[in-house]
Amino acid sequence: MADAVNPSSVVPRNGRSNDALRDVTLERGAVPYAEGSCLVSFGNTRVLCAASVEIGVPGWKKGSGEGWVTAEYAMLPRATKTRVSRERSQVGGRTQEIQRLVGRSVRAMLDDFRFGEFTVKVDCDVLQADGGTRTAAITGASVAVADAFAWMVTQGHLAASPIRRRVAAVSVGIIDGEPRLDLDYEEDVRAGVDMNVVMSSEGRFVEVQGTGEHGTFARNELDALLGLAVQGIEQLSALQLQVLGAPLNVSR
Amino acid sequence: MADAVNPSSVVPRNGRSNDALRDVTLERGAVPYAEGSCLVSFGNTRVLCAASVEIGVPGWKKGSGEGWVTAEYAMLPRATKTRVSRERSQVGGRTQEIQRLVGRSVRAMLDDFRFGEFTVKVDCDVLQADGGTRTAAITGASVAVADAFAWMVTQGHLAASPIRRRVAAVSVGIIDGEPRLDLDYEEDVRAGVDMNVVMSSEGRFVEVQGTGEHGTFARNELDALLGLAVQGIEQLSALQLQVLGAPLNVSR
Amino acid sequence: MADAVNPSSVVPRNGRSNDALRDVTLERGAVPYAEGSCLVSFGNTRVLCAASVEIGVPGWKKGSGEGWVTAEYAMLPRATKTRVSRERSQVGGRTQEIQRLVGRSVRAMLDDFRFGEFTVKVDCDVLQADGGTRTAAITGASVAVADAFAWMVTQGHLAASPIRRRVAAVSVGIIDGEPRLDLDYEEDVRAGVDMNVVMSSEGRFVEVQGTGEHGTFARNELDALLGLAVQGIEQLSALQLQVLGAPLNVSR
Amino acid sequence: MADAVNPSSVVPRNGRSNDALRDVTLERGAVPYAEGSCLVSFGNTRVLCAASVEIGVPGWKKGSGEGWVTAEYAMLPRATKTRVSRERSQVGGRTQEIQRLVGRSVRAMLDDFRFGEFTVKVDCDVLQADGGTRTAAITGASVAVADAFAWMVTQGHLAASPIRRRVAAVSVGIIDGEPRLDLDYEEDVRAGVDMNVVMSSEGRFVEVQGTGEHGTFARNELDALLGLAVQGIEQLSALQLQVLGAPLNVSR
Amino acid sequence: MADAVNPSSVVPRNGRSNDALRDVTLERGAVPYAEGSCLVSFGNTRVLCAASVEIGVPGWKKGSGEGWVTAEYAMLPRATKTRVSRERSQVGGRTQEIQRLVGRSVRAMLDDFRFGEFTVKVDCDVLQADGGTRTAAITGASVAVADAFAWMVTQGHLAASPIRRRVAAVSVGIIDGEPRLDLDYEEDVRAGVDMNVVMSSEGRFVEVQGTGEHGTFARNELDALLGLAVQGIEQLSALQLQVLGAPLNVSR
Amino acid sequence: MADAVNPSSVVPRNGRSNDALRDVTLERGAVPYAEGSCLVSFGNTRVLCAASVEIGVPGWKKGSGEGWVTAEYAMLPRATKTRVSRERSQVGGRTQEIQRLVGRSVRAMLDDFRFGEFTVKVDCDVLQADGGTRTAAITGASVAVADAFAWMVTQGHLAASPIRRRVAAVSVGIIDGEPRLDLDYEEDVRAGVDMNVVMSSEGRFVEVQGTGEHGTFARNELDALLGLAVQGIEQLSALQLQVLGAPLNVSR
Repeated sequence: MADAVNPSSVVPRNGRSNDALRDVTLERGAVPYAEGSCLVSFGNTRVLCAASVEIGVPGWKKGSGEGWVTAEYAMLPRATKTRVSRERSQVGGRTQEIQRLVGRSVRAMLDDFRFGEFTVKVDCDVLQADGGTRTAAITGASVAVADAFAWMVTQGHLAASPIRRRVAAVSVGIIDGEPRLDLDYEEDVRAGVDMNVVMSSEGRFVEVQGTGEHGTFARNELDALLGLAVQGIEQLSALQLQVLGAPLNVSR
Repeated sequence: MADAVNPSSVVPRNGRSNDALRDVTLERGAVPYAEGSCLVSFGNTRVLCAASVEIGVPGWKKGSGEGWVTAEYAMLPRATKTRVSRERSQVGGRTQEIQRLVGRSVRAMLDDFRFGEFTVKVDCDVLQADGGTRTAAITGASVAVADAFAWMVTQGHLAASPIRRRVAAVSVGIIDGEPRLDLDYEEDVRAGVDMNVVMSSEGRFVEVQGTGEHGTFARNELDALLGLAVQGIEQLSALQLQVLGAPLNVSR
Repeated sequence: MADAVNPSSVVPRNGRSNDALRDVTLERGAVPYAEGSCLVSFGNTRVLCAASVEIGVPGWKKGSGEGWVTAEYAMLPRATKTRVSRERSQVGGRTQEIQRLVGRSVRAMLDDFRFGEFTVKVDCDVLQADGGTRTAAITGASVAVADAFAWMVTQGHLAASPIRRRVAAVSVGIIDGEPRLDLDYEEDVRAGVDMNVVMSSEGRFVEVQGTGEHGTFARNELDALLGLAVQGIEQLSALQLQVLGAPLNVSR
Repeated sequence: MADAVNPSSVVPRNGRSNDALRDVTLERGAVPYAEGSCLVSFGNTRVLCAASVEIGVPGWKKGSGEGWVTAEYAMLPRATKTRVSRERSQVGGRTQEIQRLVGRSVRAMLDDFRFGEFTVKVDCDVLQADGGTRTAAITGASVAVADAFAWMVTQGHLAASPIRRRVAAVSVGIIDGEPRLDLDYEEDVRAGVDMNVVMSSEGRFVEVQGTGEHGTFARNELDALLGLAVQGIEQLSALQLQVLGAPLNVSR
Repeated sequence: MADAVNPSSVVPRNGRSNDALRDVTLERGAVPYAEGSCLVSFGNTRVLCAASVEIGVPGWKKGSGEGWVTAEYAMLPRATKTRVSRERSQVGGRTQEIQRLVGRSVRAMLDDFRFGEFTVKVDCDVLQADGGTRTAAITGASVAVADAFAWMVTQGHLAASPIRRRVAAVSVGIIDGEPRLDLDYEEDVRAGVDMNVVMSSEGRFVEVQGTGEHGTFARNELDALLGLAVQGIEQLSALQLQVLGAPLNVSR
Repeated sequence: MADAVNPSSVVPRNGRSNDALRDVTLERGAVPYAEGSCLVSFGNTRVLCAASVEIGVPGWKKGSGEGWVTAEYAMLPRATKTRVSRERSQVGGRTQEIQRLVGRSVRAMLDDFRFGEFTVKVDCDVLQADGGTRTAAITGASVAVADAFAWMVTQGHLAASPIRRRVAAVSVGIIDGEPRLDLDYEEDVRAGVDMNVVMSSEGRFVEVQGTGEHGTFARNELDALLGLAVQGIEQLSALQLQVLGAPLNVSR
């Protein structure tokens, strides 16, 4: 019983310029029971990221002396305007694709996994979905994972954190021929070309995933999209730095 | 890596008397996309209840002209002090038992289902679990379901709401020989006898589920527990009435 | 192609008074291959209970030196007047709820599980279903489990049986305003309030599960139902005692 | 905790000659709720066969005006000396193979399926397993299916029964070089060659399944086994005729 | 969008006599990465058989010092004239029946499994299906398995191969009253009686599976079918011998 | 028992320059039963692509008058040097990601789906895997899908083909600091950065998926990789044009 998207209407930005992010907030420590956590908002998109530290590693890593970092992603059924069924008997392709992407992204925060046989698993649960859930998830998960490793140092499980950099992500797309930064749901549906970009806090690319299901794209369009993404991610990265710089008081 | 429960310690109430509820809050309209919703807190237990209105009914009701009301229940993996795996390939017995209980409880708000072939499904997602998640879920779901039917009236789908009463629920248990109201997680683990009671706003019982896995109970103990539950539910019911009495402003 | 229940007819008891059990039989040793077994009948309801002794315990108990007691419940497809599909790809909520109830009930026969790392699993398979299958199952399972532990003593696996009491169960309900004991299927469908009560042979409650999906119930009605259940369970308990008192000759 | 088979012992027949069946009984009407049923015993092997009549046919037959006859097979967990897990998440290869065999066998009782869009499904549930469960199942299912079609005639759903013949089955095998009829479990484990034979009451073959996993077999051995099977099935067929000849009084 | 079989047409053999095999080829070493392999064609039926050597055995054989030989069978979705769905959530009864048959057949190539805790698994993937896929699979799998054991000897894992004989298989059936050898798909659909016969290279039977779903069969018909099968398998066995006699040059 | 990759060795190209494709072949019509097909080889990687035309569309498109084009991807268990288990109970994340990518890519061959309610499904089954299976699959699937639509025109199901362009794909990566085209398996394992690029025959991008799990990448490295990919895809596209230009003689 949700409002249908009117395909012929112009998709508005409510005064936001094409190269502007939505309002972004990072609420560090939002899940008090977790070793690291962050509630991230990109406009109306809200994702709760909780990093857990577990003793042991997946079977294929057992005995290696190395750890692992991985991610899970899910949506609450009513995160969307129309209810979406829970994935209770099989995890769909879209979900698996996103949690693989989030996992690779947070693993890029480390140079290696030589921190002992621990697993850090970050759960990204979408409370509200208005486009860009995977990029918000990556941006929040980076904060949660950094804090989980910091917790391990505080507890004496590790001498030093293996985290070497942060990662952040944003979506970009072309709508009615115009490149736009940080698409909301309505823009995402309308975009002919849609790209998710993940970058490190050192300004290098971690992932570039561009797709043109409703239309192909030329090299110069790709270049324009990458340019928009770079400047958006720089802002997200600065916000992460600021949030992680403050002392964290979570009573666990 | 959670703190282990120390089984020999006295379970404290932090100044709460044995017949007192924890701090209870009901945040009506907490899920803006849903037709009715409520974020309920019983102390550190927090459950997000979102009621969705869908056209159509389950197969066994098709063509009857009647509607249906049902519930789903789940926990975020890090709602608990130690991470719990998602139920992605099969739904466990505890989850099924709880969602069947929540479903029966909210159906008791109506006298019949002659409101047309609509389904109201209320999703109860536990954000934080510190005991009493099923009773909190029922108390919050009652508000969400009432609002979903009110929304249907506002939208002109129904001439009048079929809701006839509210329902609310609380847990009671015996710890070290003493009956206590509204157990938190640590108390729940320690309780020899544990009972969940669901009542209507008319003061009648909807469900009584008492179990004594760590010990049996006599008739007079049962009577004492029921007495505690009745007075706790009266307070919850009053709070629901107050919250539902105010006008709801949700921009959908 | 079963006869439909005529909802307006009066539900008869065939001369049985409201406080009378149906004909109850307990055929001890009905499954010759099992370590303990009992074929229980409550009127036309027939449940085959077979207790198996297995070496080892579930993963979460390994290394504890303690054992475990658990239950499974199923119906033959043609136990009912209309065929019901087998649960071959997923076990439904009702089945899980019942087998959890049976498991908790038979575990209440012991004070602790310090009898070594053995598992006693009691399978309750419904051959014919005419209401009250879960209460018949508990009543029969109690006999089967007692015999399985007796077998372990006979075989020298245990020095003494850890069984401290029996358990038995019965359903009660309110039909047309009248409390009735031990409902058959037709009564169960008609009951506004339905309660399953499990008690120990010491006269204490193990489980009380009352539900009022087709109507709520007042405190005095609850009291009347509990009174009926207590006297019915006393009769069942006496029958168990008598059956278990006789010597058992099963050639295994 | 079952007795282990001692592989070097001589497998006894307890006075039964190599060409003798075990004690066979057919208890017609054993499942009062079913449209046709038979509890069949081949010695200690006991299978409850219940035939159900359902309106409608599988999807690939819809609209054809034709009916279908099919079978399901399962074992109670404690049908065997050591408990076997229920098939609750996936049906194993052995089970599927047997229920396909039983299905083909009972379908051979008809010349065609032009009796309207009804499905007759026969459930074969093994209560006790001591070898030959599939052949006992076929022999009992034949009686149950015949009665289900007779019931349809009695009820006026069919003008005449489409049943043209009975089917019956027996196992044969070679143990220590000797052909034997109707193997029990211990013989079955020991047999180098094992064959299941299904025949019609007209004396023709429906299925011949011979397998020599523990050894191959020559043409003359195959001939000897077929000879034994033929005479055994003739006795089973005569017993079916006798049982079906009597009037059936089942109050449904 | 495949051509429908015209049920009233005469099934032609294209000049092939009733006792002739289709063109048979065995391409040994067709899967370069596998330890043993064979691409087998029976006319338009093509099956790729790849035998893999794995360290370890199934759980029930662990610690026995013995190995195991097993098989899997599958069809590419477009092996058939109309596309058939992949078995991605559950393996169907037909597939399980065939892979159990192939497994038993290749195990008959050995007298025992005392070659150490290795598993040889032969994958039979049907590239094109025109009847007789299971008999072609067995015939090709026998070559692949023989080569996998030869590879183990070459690599020094075994002192000598435990292979004692080859196995080969063919289908036979009765169409319009005439026994025919090696049925193609159209003949298979038309056959009233259908039999698969597996024999060893010593001329003894391994499996005989005859079924008469569209009609029963008499003893003399069974004898005629067996005669046809024996002479067809002799030709297949000779071809295997010739192919395995040549040196194998596979760069792995 | 496969050869382990030696991580310190230099990955050779066997005389192939960094900007050269492996030997590429496209065998059109390789699956005679399919409406369109192509066996594609990129060096030792071999993928069998078979396009099927089915009447009807997925549920969410029913009644729209539009068609759909989709893909499935799988590997034979022994396509790889070490055997990989079949996905028979759940389809893994990697498989789903690839088949979603192939599906989006072949859908980019059309401007819209207004060709009536038909589904073209292309099955991509990997017979041999030596890196680049998804890019080979896309390149072969494009030929198969084009032919399936041509077949529909020939059969009179469509007046004209809705195909507007071809698509082709290649992988590129950075190894030891050097950009390379069309990585084989050993190179793929070693690559710090790995990118799959899909382009249309009009020279526009359809998908760009770059990932740096073992290292991040700078903008100039991304540019170099895109340059390599563009020239490789131009060669693949030319080969497709040549193969599709010839008349196709497949007897179906």
